[in-house]
Amino acid sequence: MDELGLNTGKKVRLRRVLYGHGLRNGTAFFLPYDQGLEHGPRDFFANPVAGDPRYVVKLAIEGGFNGIVLQIGLAEKFYWDYAGEVPLVLKLNGKTEIPSDAEALSPLHGSVAEAVRLGADAVGYTLYVGTPAQERDFAQYRRVRADAQRLGMPLIVWAYPRGSAVEAKGGRDSFYAVDYAARTAAELGADVVKVNFPHPEKTDGVPATYAREFTSRQAIDAVVRSAGRTLLLVSGGGKTSDEAMLNKARESMAAGATGLIFGRNVWQREHDESLRFVAALREILAEHPGPG
Amino acid sequence: MDELGLNTGKKVRLRRVLYGHGLRNGTAFFLPYDQGLEHGPRDFFANPVAGDPRYVVKLAIEGGFNGIVLQIGLAEKFYWDYAGEVPLVLKLNGKTEIPSDAEALSPLHGSVAEAVRLGADAVGYTLYVGTPAQERDFAQYRRVRADAQRLGMPLIVWAYPRGSAVEAKGGRDSFYAVDYAARTAAELGADVVKVNFPHPEKTDGVPATYAREFTSRQAIDAVVRSAGRTLLLVSGGGKTSDEAMLNKARESMAAGATGLIFGRNVWQREHDESLRFVAALREILAEHPGPG
Amino acid sequence: MDELGLNTGKKVRLRRVLYGHGLRNGTAFFLPYDQGLEHGPRDFFANPVAGDPRYVVKLAIEGGFNGIVLQIGLAEKFYWDYAGEVPLVLKLNGKTEIPSDAEALSPLHGSVAEAVRLGADAVGYTLYVGTPAQERDFAQYRRVRADAQRLGMPLIVWAYPRGSAVEAKGGRDSFYAVDYAARTAAELGADVVKVNFPHPEKTDGVPATYAREFTSRQAIDAVVRSAGRTLLLVSGGGKTSDEAMLNKARESMAAGATGLIFGRNVWQREHDESLRFVAALREILAEHPGPG
Amino acid sequence: MDELGLNTGKKVRLRRVLYGHGLRNGTAFFLPYDQGLEHGPRDFFANPVAGDPRYVVKLAIEGGFNGIVLQIGLAEKFYWDYAGEVPLVLKLNGKTEIPSDAEALSPLHGSVAEAVRLGADAVGYTLYVGTPAQERDFAQYRRVRADAQRLGMPLIVWAYPRGSAVEAKGGRDSFYAVDYAARTAAELGADVVKVNFPHPEKTDGVPATYAREFTSRQAIDAVVRSAGRTLLLVSGGGKTSDEAMLNKARESMAAGATGLIFGRNVWQREHDESLRFVAALREILAEHPGPG
Amino acid sequence: MDELGLNTGKKVRLRRVLYGHGLRNGTAFFLPYDQGLEHGPRDFFANPVAGDPRYVVKLAIEGGFNGIVLQIGLAEKFYWDYAGEVPLVLKLNGKTEIPSDAEALSPLHGSVAEAVRLGADAVGYTLYVGTPAQERDFAQYRRVRADAQRLGMPLIVWAYPRGSAVEAKGGRDSFYAVDYAARTAAELGADVVKVNFPHPEKTDGVPATYAREFTSRQAIDAVVRSAGRTLLLVSGGGKTSDEAMLNKARESMAAGATGLIFGRNVWQREHDESLRFVAALREILAEHPGPG
Repeated sequence: MDELGLNTGKKVRLRRVLYGHGLRNGTAFFLPYDQGLEHGPRDFFANPVAGDPRYVVKLAIEGGFNGIVLQIGLAEKFYWDYAGEVPLVLKLNGKTEIPSDAEALSPLHGSVAEAVRLGADAVGYTLYVGTPAQERDFAQYRRVRADAQRLGMPLIVWAYPRGSAVEAKGGRDSFYAVDYAARTAAELGADVVKVNFPHPEKTDGVPATYAREFTSRQAIDAVVRSAGRTLLLVSGGGKTSDEAMLNKARESMAAGATGLIFGRNVWQREHDESLRFVAALREILAEHPGPG
Repeated sequence: MDELGLNTGKKVRLRRVLYGHGLRNGTAFFLPYDQGLEHGPRDFFANPVAGDPRYVVKLAIEGGFNGIVLQIGLAEKFYWDYAGEVPLVLKLNGKTEIPSDAEALSPLHGSVAEAVRLGADAVGYTLYVGTPAQERDFAQYRRVRADAQRLGMPLIVWAYPRGSAVEAKGGRDSFYAVDYAARTAAELGADVVKVNFPHPEKTDGVPATYAREFTSRQAIDAVVRSAGRTLLLVSGGGKTSDEAMLNKARESMAAGATGLIFGRNVWQREHDESLRFVAALREILAEHPGPG
Repeated sequence: MDELGLNTGKKVRLRRVLYGHGLRNGTAFFLPYDQGLEHGPRDFFANPVAGDPRYVVKLAIEGGFNGIVLQIGLAEKFYWDYAGEVPLVLKLNGKTEIPSDAEALSPLHGSVAEAVRLGADAVGYTLYVGTPAQERDFAQYRRVRADAQRLGMPLIVWAYPRGSAVEAKGGRDSFYAVDYAARTAAELGADVVKVNFPHPEKTDGVPATYAREFTSRQAIDAVVRSAGRTLLLVSGGGKTSDEAMLNKARESMAAGATGLIFGRNVWQREHDESLRFVAALREILAEHPGPG
Repeated sequence: MDELGLNTGKKVRLRRVLYGHGLRNGTAFFLPYDQGLEHGPRDFFANPVAGDPRYVVKLAIEGGFNGIVLQIGLAEKFYWDYAGEVPLVLKLNGKTEIPSDAEALSPLHGSVAEAVRLGADAVGYTLYVGTPAQERDFAQYRRVRADAQRLGMPLIVWAYPRGSAVEAKGGRDSFYAVDYAARTAAELGADVVKVNFPHPEKTDGVPATYAREFTSRQAIDAVVRSAGRTLLLVSGGGKTSDEAMLNKARESMAAGATGLIFGRNVWQREHDESLRFVAALREILAEHPGPG
Repeated sequence: MDELGLNTGKKVRLRRVLYGHGLRNGTAFFLPYDQGLEHGPRDFFANPVAGDPRYVVKLAIEGGFNGIVLQIGLAEKFYWDYAGEVPLVLKLNGKTEIPSDAEALSPLHGSVAEAVRLGADAVGYTLYVGTPAQERDFAQYRRVRADAQRLGMPLIVWAYPRGSAVEAKGGRDSFYAVDYAARTAAELGADVVKVNFPHPEKTDGVPATYAREFTSRQAIDAVVRSAGRTLLLVSGGGKTSDEAMLNKARESMAAGATGLIFGRNVWQREHDESLRFVAALREILAEHPGPG
């Protein structure tokens, strides 16, 4: 923590999240719950009770997560009842999945100042790395980053390769795209970066340096190095098999990731099964404590 | 009311609207009158006297509505004469129907501060969920939401799926679109959301989860759940048969909607017939009082 | 005047224009002189002396007009010499006719605050109703309206249907377009609206309600009603026969219009002939005094 | 000067330029030196020493010019050494010639406040009359005009017809285009307008009023009248024969122009020849003193 | 230094960079390290340790550079540990290489005020000379320049010809493009300009003045003259042979350049070899001391 170049407010809040919640060992495990905006209520059909924010916030508390991620509307209408029981990460931007993603950009819905008002311990921002709309995305991000710096609020960047040019150069999950996204977040001042797990086998259209053979472990190692002093979280993505998820978690933590951010893989199953899956992930996190 | 996470000013005004007017039982029945801008004077040909704002404001008072919805121009030139007799909902944005709707966006015409100056008890904002112009729409909405929060003004969102991408994925009235719209308003901090009644039979192009068979009652139930603590109003839409409208009202209220917002179905008929239709709707509302 | 919902400053200035100048009977007769920007100097070839602003301002004084309409440049360089002799309407926006009108928008050149500094009694704004650029037009207009409200300055809206969508739905002079334009100005808070005389025979592409047969008198009657408490001025348009102009004036005033705004039909003729034509129009205005 | 409607600061500075420098007789002769940005260093190949700003500023002093026109960069790095010896006109906007001119717009590089800081006596702004980008151009211009008014800084408008629509209607040098440009600058509050000499023989696509035969003298006469109380400067344009330039100067001054603004025709020749050419132009200016 | 027209703060900082670091003789040698954003981590595959900012900052110190160039994120997270050991140039804008360069623009990520906070001695800005997006680029640049002037911060402009129009007129490295870029930076107020070495043999589509034969020495001479009092740095570009790089450095310094800015040619090799290459370049710089 002392080497990250954080100002006092950021350090206070990040230390609280990493050492005052969850496993309290410097690892991070976040529960994201902005899919109602990003994908719509269709994500709740598998487990309808998950459409109720109260259910999911309680799950974050029961599961011992380091934080729950909410958009401004749910944060204002539901978080007051659980204030202080689990840290709030206010997601500042988001969009619906309805219009085309070719020039993806995620508009702001809340501000860092509102995160302060709500007692949040971090803010989240989705940066669509490589989008043809990068000019407007970077401009919007810059104001968020400056506000977060000014107000001492840790900034978590969802570094997501997206848009027509990304699709033409290996796709959003290629090692090239994920590695570049992690570095972009680091270059631009993210305190924490959330990435998808890299797929080194996706090489169509990637630069020559990435067109060689890499294991997934080599890829995630490189991604963690590209992030540097920006702490790295690995995203769960869509629901898949438990074993695949646990493997992904193991390789990420072994490579030096700080933690995980799994949503649908957690709350798209029945309550007790969610907690069992969470427990398995916590075991992995326990084996890779942070530097303290 | 106590569970909605409202600040003091919002609670004062929303309580006044829901318990100090209309049936005074926590239900809501609004009379919208911005069609002169949205559709032009053609909407008044069926009952020309309805083109006169004085007639419609008086109708709102006679019919015991919870509020009359006006754009800034009519609010300034006509509401002074009836100030305090019926709550004012200042509609903040709107557009003409002349240019194409493919990239729909509804520009602002008034501000929350002007609503305060005019003694309004709520403001209305049309959010075109799914429009390719969502970047600008969300940015505009965000400023309105923040102003409403700051000034303690309840915010009613007209959550209308619109634009070329919506038309390609089931259309503006599909269960998918209406459900997503209700959730979007909730995620983004609306206090009240106005939706059209969902049509679960419109399944061309919708996600698989919505392509199954649903009754209209199942659909409106789900939409109310998606709105969560955001109170839900069902819109009347274009004029149709009384029985269809009453059924829609019954199903909505039974599903947990807070109320109705019917315009053309009310004032596009002769005066006494309007009041008879209003009385029938009030009977339905009386059977579904709010939680108090 | 007392029923228009005007604040004190607007009432002072509008009363001065309508009862302190011209016929002093509540009617209005304005001389617009912004064609040098809108059409270029070609409008002055018919009567070259009219290219000199001094000539036209003097004509406004000699003809007993209620106001002269100038853009900021001419107002600053020429009005000082005639300050107080005839009210100034500062036209706030305008454009050249050179680029395409398909997405018409009229950019701002002056501000309401500058109108105050120059002692103007009203400001003018061209709103291109139905333009595909309505988003930017409405945004620009909104700021002007709010400034006019704040500074107590009457706002005259040139409500001009324009752009590709208007041309596809009956054209800029159709009854549909003019009626919608008048209503739009009223909904959006214009104190006075300037429209072209409606042509009910233009029905190609208009909504069914307007596709029936109407006399021009029926059309202008409806337009005046659509404007409601927004005072209505009828525009002269391009130069045409005296009898056509006088008929248009008679029908408009009989329908309840507040007055006329004729430019090229006045100053595109020799000096004494201009004054004779003005006198004929004043006779019509004298027969239709305002409510006082 | 007393009839131009100028505020005190503008009058002080404009009087200093017209009566305290150059021929001190109310005429103006400016040396523009922004071609390094507008055309690039290729303009200096004919006389490489002219690429050095020191050479050109000295030439302005030796030639007895009323002012030297510089962009912010050269003004800051070179004018300090000659401060007060020749008035500075700070050119506020400009662009490279590399991208297409079809939607020409000249972005701002400096502000009126910076002109004040540098002791400039006027600012220059290029307005691309008729460009499809007129909306943004006019908006940018409006802020400059308002700042110039507030700070008492004379505003010289380079009124240049440009863009695809201009090319389709007679081209940038047609009598129609130049006349319209002069009028536009006057309508929009320029204190001084710089135009190219009109070519009445360019009639392809111009309005009927301009399609007749005019002599160049008739054309420049009309242009000066269209500018009205906005003082008119005639631009030199690209280098051509001395006799053509002197004729242009004679006709312009006889028509009532206030002066000339010649750059490449002056500094694209050897030093002493430059001064001889300048002397010939000064003779013409001496024959047409301003009104005093 | 005394002739550059710099304000006090700029002079303090630039003198510190040029005479307090590096060879302390008025020459400059900068180590740029923003390629992780501009090209992504692929630039680090040749020498993976160079992906760690600590390695590169240490290299800048060991190699006796005049400054290290970092984006805001790396500056905040890594520079604190080496603060004051080597001057920081905060690069203010940047972009990824993923989307198309046809309308290149480099968005802002930091501000001049943040550079002050971090103790930087200069800021860097990439200006894409000739891009079709020049309107937005110039507007963004203008604010940076004004802030740098106000805060006394030297401004280094990466003057990079880029975009579809540049490619059609000789390409980004042509003598025409580089010469124009240097002049543009000077006209627009850069204190220092970074250019690529000109290629006079690239003449396809360039203006006639540049289509003749020039040696590379003639070309770089002209470019230095076009920059005038704006100090010129020559960029290294992609890694190539040592001899080519040393020749480029010799010709540049002989032509009057102030220094070099070489990144990949330095850190894309093994540590000791980097220092040997740096030593060779320093010998060249030592032969061309600045004016003092």
